[in-house]
Amino acid sequence: MHFTDQNISKLDKSYRRNLINSVTGFKSVSLIGSVNQEGITNVAPFSQIIHVGADPALIGVMFRPYVVERHTLANILETQNFTINHITTELMERAHHTSARWQSSEFSACDLEVEYIPDFGAPFVKGALVKIGLDFVERLDVQTNGTHLIVGEIKHIEVPEEVVAADGYIDLEAAGTLTCSGLDSYHKTQRVARFAYAKPNQKLKKLS
Amino acid sequence: MHFTDQNISKLDKSYRRNLINSVTGFKSVSLIGSVNQEGITNVAPFSQIIHVGADPALIGVMFRPYVVERHTLANILETQNFTINHITTELMERAHHTSARWQSSEFSACDLEVEYIPDFGAPFVKGALVKIGLDFVERLDVQTNGTHLIVGEIKHIEVPEEVVAADGYIDLEAAGTLTCSGLDSYHKTQRVARFAYAKPNQKLKKLS
Repeated sequence: MHFTDQNISKLDKSYRRNLINSVTGFKSVSLIGSVNQEGITNVAPFSQIIHVGADPALIGVMFRPYVVERHTLANILETQNFTINHITTELMERAHHTSARWQSSEFSACDLEVEYIPDFGAPFVKGALVKIGLDFVERLDVQTNGTHLIVGEIKHIEVPEEVVAADGYIDLEAAGTLTCSGLDSYHKTQRVARFAYAKPNQKLKKLS
Repeated sequence: MHFTDQNISKLDKSYRRNLINSVTGFKSVSLIGSVNQEGITNVAPFSQIIHVGADPALIGVMFRPYVVERHTLANILETQNFTINHITTELMERAHHTSARWQSSEFSACDLEVEYIPDFGAPFVKGALVKIGLDFVERLDVQTNGTHLIVGEIKHIEVPEEVVAADGYIDLEAAGTLTCSGLDSYHKTQRVARFAYAKPNQKLKKLS
């Protein structure tokens, strides 16, 4: 099948959303926790999460245009921090249900428990095995479509000791972290190979 | 294990790279094909690929600071287009090997075949099952660390007909697309569930 930009612009809206959201490949999927100045918590699933840098440790999250109420984005700009909580099979259904338009905090609506750590404002998701706490540092606006890349600096990482390899690599598969595709599909993974640093004119070495 | 920003900044550099590159969760991994004005092709694996919008159909790719020679970024800015080619198990070893510092085109060095389509300048990777051709539209510079988000508009999508569902969703698992974690680990996937659009106060429905 061959789609061109002209075809794509004429597709049914829902078909196009599914197609374009799945064409980038498998994605990170995590629950982002935030809170507003009144202390009302919010949690929602995001799959537009990207590594921005290791030193300082920066993560970017892409948000849709801020033309309607977007609680997570509003909260981050208001209270300047947020959390990223990996989704396991056990959390999956409740995590996906937070994407509905709830009137109250998705934590209580979806039977998720809030967890705080000392001296950090944003709420974590209890039961998540890999958890990151971030401070807001920068907002970039995409001119072409009005989306926003929010860049956060990592302040805290909580991860089970047994899934961190000697070289710092987090074995996400061992941590039960899921990946997603499109808008609504969740997948577990099976390692095919891990490679040593690649060099020209030398056969690749597998680490495991 | 609990890492704070102070711990993280003191970690061994390689340990930190592995830790921070894996903490965001599973990632898209694709070969990006490009060409310079002299017609010299380039292909390299990227895992910082993000959905930016569906209409117009936009994809973002994060690049490290442009302080040393970066062929892919230079080519995109020079010739204004690039391709994204999904990696299957069959392509995986050759795909990873393109990350080495080759002096010539990685296509020939790594036994990958170039494929062109009419009226589009950038090279595709023959054998990739999901292929995207994009025009450069926008560059955003992250002030905090000098990285660049390159936004491209989708001009072409090539995908096997049998993996596109009736609602537009591309079944990446059926297409054999891999996901990656950290800097060097490749994984295949197994679907846990696909959900219908979530509504408040209604039990989630599974699509498959």
